[in-house]
Amino acid sequence: MQFKIIKTDNYARLGKIAASRGVINTPAFMPVGTNATVKAMTPGEMKELGTEVLLSNTYHLYLRPGHDIIRDVGGLHRFMQWDGPILTDSGGFQVFSLAKLRKIKDDGVEFRSHIDGSLHFLTPELVMDIQGALGSDIAMVFDECTPYPADKEYALNSLMLTTAWARRCKEAKNDNQALFGIVQGGMFRDLRKQSAQELMKIDFDGYALGGLSVGEPKELMYEMINYTTPLLPQDMPRYLMGIGDLLDVLEAVAAGIDMFDCVMPTRNARNGTLFTSQGRISIKREEFKKDPGPLDPYCTCYTCMNYSRAYLRHLYLSREILSMRLNTNHNIHFFLEFFRKMREAIGNGAFNSFREEQTPVLEGNFNG
Amino acid sequence: MQFKIIKTDNYARLGKIAASRGVINTPAFMPVGTNATVKAMTPGEMKELGTEVLLSNTYHLYLRPGHDIIRDVGGLHRFMQWDGPILTDSGGFQVFSLAKLRKIKDDGVEFRSHIDGSLHFLTPELVMDIQGALGSDIAMVFDECTPYPADKEYALNSLMLTTAWARRCKEAKNDNQALFGIVQGGMFRDLRKQSAQELMKIDFDGYALGGLSVGEPKELMYEMINYTTPLLPQDMPRYLMGIGDLLDVLEAVAAGIDMFDCVMPTRNARNGTLFTSQGRISIKREEFKKDPGPLDPYCTCYTCMNYSRAYLRHLYLSREILSMRLNTNHNIHFFLEFFRKMREAIGNGAFNSFREEQTPVLEGNFNG
Repeated sequence: MQFKIIKTDNYARLGKIAASRGVINTPAFMPVGTNATVKAMTPGEMKELGTEVLLSNTYHLYLRPGHDIIRDVGGLHRFMQWDGPILTDSGGFQVFSLAKLRKIKDDGVEFRSHIDGSLHFLTPELVMDIQGALGSDIAMVFDECTPYPADKEYALNSLMLTTAWARRCKEAKNDNQALFGIVQGGMFRDLRKQSAQELMKIDFDGYALGGLSVGEPKELMYEMINYTTPLLPQDMPRYLMGIGDLLDVLEAVAAGIDMFDCVMPTRNARNGTLFTSQGRISIKREEFKKDPGPLDPYCTCYTCMNYSRAYLRHLYLSREILSMRLNTNHNIHFFLEFFRKMREAIGNGAFNSFREEQTPVLEGNFNG
Repeated sequence: MQFKIIKTDNYARLGKIAASRGVINTPAFMPVGTNATVKAMTPGEMKELGTEVLLSNTYHLYLRPGHDIIRDVGGLHRFMQWDGPILTDSGGFQVFSLAKLRKIKDDGVEFRSHIDGSLHFLTPELVMDIQGALGSDIAMVFDECTPYPADKEYALNSLMLTTAWARRCKEAKNDNQALFGIVQGGMFRDLRKQSAQELMKIDFDGYALGGLSVGEPKELMYEMINYTTPLLPQDMPRYLMGIGDLLDVLEAVAAGIDMFDCVMPTRNARNGTLFTSQGRISIKREEFKKDPGPLDPYCTCYTCMNYSRAYLRHLYLSREILSMRLNTNHNIHFFLEFFRKMREAIGNGAFNSFREEQTPVLEGNFNG
């Protein structure tokens, strides 16, 4: 995997990751395909929308269908018929947020499956084996996601565990797979710095910020992003895990982050919340009942080119599967277009004016 | 609307309906788009699969979003972006099977909505107005679906009501819309004959058999189909409502039926039951867990050309929306291909051997 910075605009970076299965233009948005599919979408549709990289979840695929099955049928790309780059997370966050009866030990984490209550024990080595079986292009180290709030002692012990596990993951690294470290350290600047330095000594192909957007106030999250990001190597990709609110994305890109993933566009779509050039729309609103116009008159996606708000509202209220399809298609298009325009702005040295222009739109709710 | 018989093979007929929005080759299968969408599918996908006509439900669209809204946005074709022919049923069957607290009066039927319990009164004139608002290519008369079992007195009164309503529907007929009568009469040959004769006197563009597959034994249903179908005009389309089990289709085509609709391919798809050249498959079965092969090695649909049984099983067990999409795509393809091959067989005077060849496949359940 190679990373090249094409242009910087203050701290914001325009770059390219050359992965074995294709180029990823950064700042990049990675749509989430938790169960080996982006919910409601085919891989062909994702490609047509301009997706360059998908994220898939190690925790979910380990539990179902099981990584051995995916290995047997030729890996995740073949299983789900996506031939572009895939980043797999390590399961650290899901063990923290989804699993039950979690017990953190030096060796790994014992937990019960959120699906069937079965008992499991994930170790750094097993997590690397799972990601190897999946055959993703970029793997993540197994980390402990430090909860919020956590006192300094807890956060320190947690980051030391993450460092130790990161070292073990590096030793168990798979061939032909890039490996990223994950910076923890809770909400403490010095611990974030310590975590970053320890990981950099181990030497990874890229670095992520973890343990953010876990309940802390936005200002605290922004402080951690702005403080930690410049500590990471200039010449490697930087990934802010699980964050996709576009206002947060603007803040993070301004700090020098290159990669993002989030379920926001897909989950919101299924709940009827749609992103438009005039702000967010809740498609179920009465005012759209007879509205013959497109969701967003400035949008060129399949949904907006073909269907009326009246139809989209009807599908949503009827709980039709096509509602989730059309809404997801639109929101993914919106996110990828947003990132494309943001990259263009950085390329033109105009990131700040892009940010100023987009902020009121992103803050707004459309009122018909 | 014009109907031409190209070839007959005993009672089986190969024909063409030239509707204003396109040609329908008969025997035809009409996939069901209840809420102005075939569940999980886009109209473009339905067209690519070779769909020539869709059925949509008057009862559902009247209740939600309301026919006035669809009229206001330019009719059902525009609303759902399907530019081929649409047949709308009359709501008679849904009032019978879905609505609550149904009261049948001379003038029409009072009932409560299955969605929100609201009170409604459907009359023949209102049903024609609704179908006019939808702008379907073929409308159906409002009928009373005679329940099973019904004694002869009930069945006679019911058919007389259906005849009276059929006459009122004919008087309220919309321009540029074909109108089909619906033969009732319960399980009584003489009443079926009486119903057919009364409707033929009113003179419709086609004739349907209603009130079948409502709980009666198969032999009785087959007896009614075989007895009634030849009583209908030779030179007009004959439609067997709501029946799509392919064994029943073979029986009915042998009797001279031209049109069918059924939720079976779409509903079964969502439940994980898939039609293949080797019989039905339940995709959730353990034996498909690691199966790298396609659902049906002889099938050329998108699902079979791209995905493994292992993946389809995983999607189904994970309740992914893509599961419903891929399964529906496959089942619709299977049904449309079945009808295409059946038409080819009739054209070649080989319907009987087609029927003999298909029967064991349709009866079979695939065992891996």
